[in-house]
Amino acid sequence: MLVDISKELAEELTSTAEALADAARDVILPYFRQSGGLEVQNKLSTGFDPVTAADKAAEQAMRAVLATRRPDDAILGEEFGHKSGSTGMTWVLDPIDGTRAFMSGTATWGVLIAVSDETGPRFGMIDQPYTGERFRGGLGMANWQSPRGGGALCTRTTGALGDAILFTTFPEVGTLAERAGFEAVRDEVQLVRYGMDCYAYALLAMGQIDLVIEAGLQAYDIQGPLAVIQGAGGIVTNWQGGPAHDGGRVLAAANPSIHAQALEILKRF
Amino acid sequence: MLVDISKELAEELTSTAEALADAARDVILPYFRQSGGLEVQNKLSTGFDPVTAADKAAEQAMRAVLATRRPDDAILGEEFGHKSGSTGMTWVLDPIDGTRAFMSGTATWGVLIAVSDETGPRFGMIDQPYTGERFRGGLGMANWQSPRGGGALCTRTTGALGDAILFTTFPEVGTLAERAGFEAVRDEVQLVRYGMDCYAYALLAMGQIDLVIEAGLQAYDIQGPLAVIQGAGGIVTNWQGGPAHDGGRVLAAANPSIHAQALEILKRF
Repeated sequence: MLVDISKELAEELTSTAEALADAARDVILPYFRQSGGLEVQNKLSTGFDPVTAADKAAEQAMRAVLATRRPDDAILGEEFGHKSGSTGMTWVLDPIDGTRAFMSGTATWGVLIAVSDETGPRFGMIDQPYTGERFRGGLGMANWQSPRGGGALCTRTTGALGDAILFTTFPEVGTLAERAGFEAVRDEVQLVRYGMDCYAYALLAMGQIDLVIEAGLQAYDIQGPLAVIQGAGGIVTNWQGGPAHDGGRVLAAANPSIHAQALEILKRF
Repeated sequence: MLVDISKELAEELTSTAEALADAARDVILPYFRQSGGLEVQNKLSTGFDPVTAADKAAEQAMRAVLATRRPDDAILGEEFGHKSGSTGMTWVLDPIDGTRAFMSGTATWGVLIAVSDETGPRFGMIDQPYTGERFRGGLGMANWQSPRGGGALCTRTTGALGDAILFTTFPEVGTLAERAGFEAVRDEVQLVRYGMDCYAYALLAMGQIDLVIEAGLQAYDIQGPLAVIQGAGGIVTNWQGGPAHDGGRVLAAANPSIHAQALEILKRF
């Protein structure tokens, strides 16, 4: 169901998103960098996908906010799965995106929130509770705030791939083919950096970097960032140029020119 | 000249280090994340070693502080080289360690300050102006402060390499042999992360991670972090177990057990 969003509904959705981010922050921060407070489990029998007590508690806190403020919306959350709704709107929640970053004490994890209809996210948020930075995009809005100030979000105008700064979380990226795709773009850019997790999307929206390439994402990994980046003037697609809101292989770019140049390479993989 | 450090001298040195970090912070912060404020140059004709206007201005500001407070000490700075002195003490300064991080808008760069004699650094500091985190170690001190609080610095007690979290800045690390050494340790640890620059040393001192392995360092890249980590109970050596304060290949570890296990592997390279 495609939802027509009135000014009143937009205000209700954005204020609900703020309340969700506040609730998650309050739950998560006491766990961050507290030895003993972090209960790491192996969520998958193979591989390494830690999930923390903070992650679960934060999603429960966000679901409690939605039960009060938007009880008829659907929810898709990383930890507790899907809850159906009747309004055509779905809240897509990742309480701690970047659990490995969280485990290591780096403030590059984030609370990711989106509210979406069948066309994809209409509004999204990346919140970094430790630095106090909150990034918002969609419904006519693209801004950030922090204890050091904030302002409008606007992506860069970099025209050539050779001048671009590219981020991804792990150098291994995904499958071997996906890694080869990433590396083919990497070989063309000015600078590549790793390890920023979802914070890289915030850097892109802030106009600090030009490209983020990831693979193997879930919907809840990308919907919040996607709305923020689009609001800031950037472009987020999959590696074929199609919609990225279901996750998988994602290319986020500062502008159409840099997106087209990276896409031309990634399409081959 | 090995300097005997009285209580009075220790207080003078630590308060001077604070003044240096304050001066550098005030100069650098206006440049951070300001498009147009960053003048990137290629310092080397080959490779990519950007240096910013902020970097130079901050070192000048620190040298001005020393000219007033400690005019007879020597200085070794990244940007303006060596100035000789007569006291046996040398200030070792890297105004912005992590210029690539700085260029990308990530708050993982730092101001590195050490005051050293011929035995190596006696006191050191890692300052991250954007997050407001300052880490200190040496002369009987090991602590940190930030807008969110702070406290004593104390490294982890992780006993087995298989439980360790390892950081380095770039997956390529250094020469091919150095990369092979790093990868041999990487293959034994629980988790490896990239892209934190000098902030990884602060995470080690805070007890968040277990190992940092780097190669190709300069003295000014490691002396500040070395003093902080040693003050917090950690161990920093080169890959042969010898002193690391001249730079080169560096192994920083949370405790003697984890250091010995990583060193055993790195020694072969």
